[in-house]
Amino acid sequence: MKNIAILGSTGSIGTQTLEVIKGNNNLFRAFLITAHSNAELLISQAIEFMPAYAIICDTGKYLQVKEALAHLPIEVLAGHQAIIDTVTHPEIDVVLTAMVGFAGLEPTIAAIKAGKDIALANKETLVVAGEIVTALAKQHGVNILPVDSEHSAIFQCLTGEENNPVEKLIITASGGPFRGRSLDFLTGVSREEALKHPNWVMGAKITIDSASLMNKGLEVIEAKWLFDVDADQIDVVVHPQSIIHSMVQFRDGSIKAQMGLPDMKLPIQYALTYPNRIQNDFKRFDFTAYPNLTFEKPDLETFRNLGLAYAALKQGGNMPCIINAANEIAVAGFLNNSIGFLAMSDLIEECMQQIAFVSQPTITDYLNTDKETRIFAQNFIQKLPLKAINY
Amino acid sequence: MKNIAILGSTGSIGTQTLEVIKGNNNLFRAFLITAHSNAELLISQAIEFMPAYAIICDTGKYLQVKEALAHLPIEVLAGHQAIIDTVTHPEIDVVLTAMVGFAGLEPTIAAIKAGKDIALANKETLVVAGEIVTALAKQHGVNILPVDSEHSAIFQCLTGEENNPVEKLIITASGGPFRGRSLDFLTGVSREEALKHPNWVMGAKITIDSASLMNKGLEVIEAKWLFDVDADQIDVVVHPQSIIHSMVQFRDGSIKAQMGLPDMKLPIQYALTYPNRIQNDFKRFDFTAYPNLTFEKPDLETFRNLGLAYAALKQGGNMPCIINAANEIAVAGFLNNSIGFLAMSDLIEECMQQIAFVSQPTITDYLNTDKETRIFAQNFIQKLPLKAINY
Repeated sequence: MKNIAILGSTGSIGTQTLEVIKGNNNLFRAFLITAHSNAELLISQAIEFMPAYAIICDTGKYLQVKEALAHLPIEVLAGHQAIIDTVTHPEIDVVLTAMVGFAGLEPTIAAIKAGKDIALANKETLVVAGEIVTALAKQHGVNILPVDSEHSAIFQCLTGEENNPVEKLIITASGGPFRGRSLDFLTGVSREEALKHPNWVMGAKITIDSASLMNKGLEVIEAKWLFDVDADQIDVVVHPQSIIHSMVQFRDGSIKAQMGLPDMKLPIQYALTYPNRIQNDFKRFDFTAYPNLTFEKPDLETFRNLGLAYAALKQGGNMPCIINAANEIAVAGFLNNSIGFLAMSDLIEECMQQIAFVSQPTITDYLNTDKETRIFAQNFIQKLPLKAINY
Repeated sequence: MKNIAILGSTGSIGTQTLEVIKGNNNLFRAFLITAHSNAELLISQAIEFMPAYAIICDTGKYLQVKEALAHLPIEVLAGHQAIIDTVTHPEIDVVLTAMVGFAGLEPTIAAIKAGKDIALANKETLVVAGEIVTALAKQHGVNILPVDSEHSAIFQCLTGEENNPVEKLIITASGGPFRGRSLDFLTGVSREEALKHPNWVMGAKITIDSASLMNKGLEVIEAKWLFDVDADQIDVVVHPQSIIHSMVQFRDGSIKAQMGLPDMKLPIQYALTYPNRIQNDFKRFDFTAYPNLTFEKPDLETFRNLGLAYAALKQGGNMPCIINAANEIAVAGFLNNSIGFLAMSDLIEECMQQIAFVSQPTITDYLNTDKETRIFAQNFIQKLPLKAINY
């Protein structure tokens, strides 16, 4: 029996992780669940899964959760620090990090230092501080098991190939809802249009990131740290059907791909059962339903975020931290209608130019860069001319 | 330095194997080369690669080879038995079996008994006597390393997944030059048309087998024995671009595929370097040249051979041996214009019905079944009405 801590249990990945646990309750127990602010769902999850701990990040909702679970043997805690303190609990085997954004960094580091394997769905952890986090994982003999479908695909393709150098990683991208669209079309596009992802059902932040290709940019950076390759060894190819989840090209030219229907439960389950695979009743892929798999180059002129992410990766230091923080503010601004779709890239680029560059940042530097970038970005949005809202 | 015996060095696989050896002469030596009857090429290969042994199967050409190589420290031998005797030489590390048809069986068995790893390009060995050959390999602790692109793909996908049961193997088929054609069209089709394979440059026998889908049928049987699965766990999907070379679906539903340009040098090299991969300058696959990968169901009504092969596999015993022998005679008959393209399936089906079934055959039974089927099939062709030649 593996005890799982699910950081972000009420989000898209979190709820699917609980489905996987439910289907395999002989193998896994949800030992700790956390929510940002969705107290209602956290309460009902706690009642169903009976974890040892339920933590609500939003301290204002502590009493609501505490009272609802008062009759149950579940310890209820609140606040970001409570998560950091509790992920180190000796009974926890795997910490699945599915929080949104930069907030995943500190709990992940705490879990690694406590020797917990990490099932990593919070890509921002590696985007921001990949060098430090991967070095820590090595030092503590901890596995980082990717949950992102692309990285899980690469991880699966690398199984058994430990001695064979990678020539190239090929990360697939659906292209999002605006694939093939022009800059003109994207001017003034609405949040409702951007939230319509063609293949994947995901949270709002990552869905907007998919529409802007920033999600792919963050994945490129994540891949660099997970698989120890250079930026120019990572290609992105647009594959609208999302059936091939990603590929590895080895030094003999042979390419391995991992494929399947777009269903996050598979990579979640694999991260929890690795290196074994267990039987399940997930719907199987069938070629008769997908007679054409298509591929095209990403349009870097229309979707500038992907190029900005490559640039940040090549510059290194705190630059990926800057684009991540800038992007979080940009997406939040887009979602509350205070900045247009295309202006998000302007904002990110401005932050890359204005925030102080640190070539060898410490964790404290990252925390400062993150804070500084957010403040700068917020101010930038407030000062924007009205037209940027529709740009 | 690995010493390689190449059985069938003058054929398509044999010459490409020598190219791989030439490109890596710090790793490999062609220790023994054999030809069926192409004395000229065998002589020039011997002069270039300086093997310890050069064997010509056609004894009538022995003197020609012997004299041409008299000034060199190369032992020249002749005849099928000489091959069987020499593959057991203690200095040989790997025996690459690229002979055409049933003739590969006895040398392969001799090599396995001598503890040599087998790089298997002669699929007929496993089609005819898969149960015996795989049991022998296990007994002698010998690796059977597939060279067929499809089986190499599956083998590569299984690396590192030793503990994970296979749910399904998905073997891809180009569909050959007649994909999408009707029975009407295939009536009276010429050998020249059948020899035009869209993707692969191969020998005449296997090219005709590709056009008739018998090659895929033989591969299904080969896969059954190589990977220890049931017939109903093996699917065939037509994929005209021949980029995905085959796939494995594991019990969690995850599919791994191996991909690349259609180039036999890659699986040849992998069989020789397994489990390592070495650098090479083979042309790399590029999605921009293949923006569409397409998939369709094989047309079993038009291409009856694939269904016959599945039926033979399910019946077991000497039935795969019967279809293999019948098919060798059918293809030879088609190539010398004595039987039509569609009549090949009639001949194979007739042999399946007329030759005595043996449920638990020994190697001697296989030799007898093979001989008996060939005689029956030859007679059948000679008695065919003239119209069958154009059918």
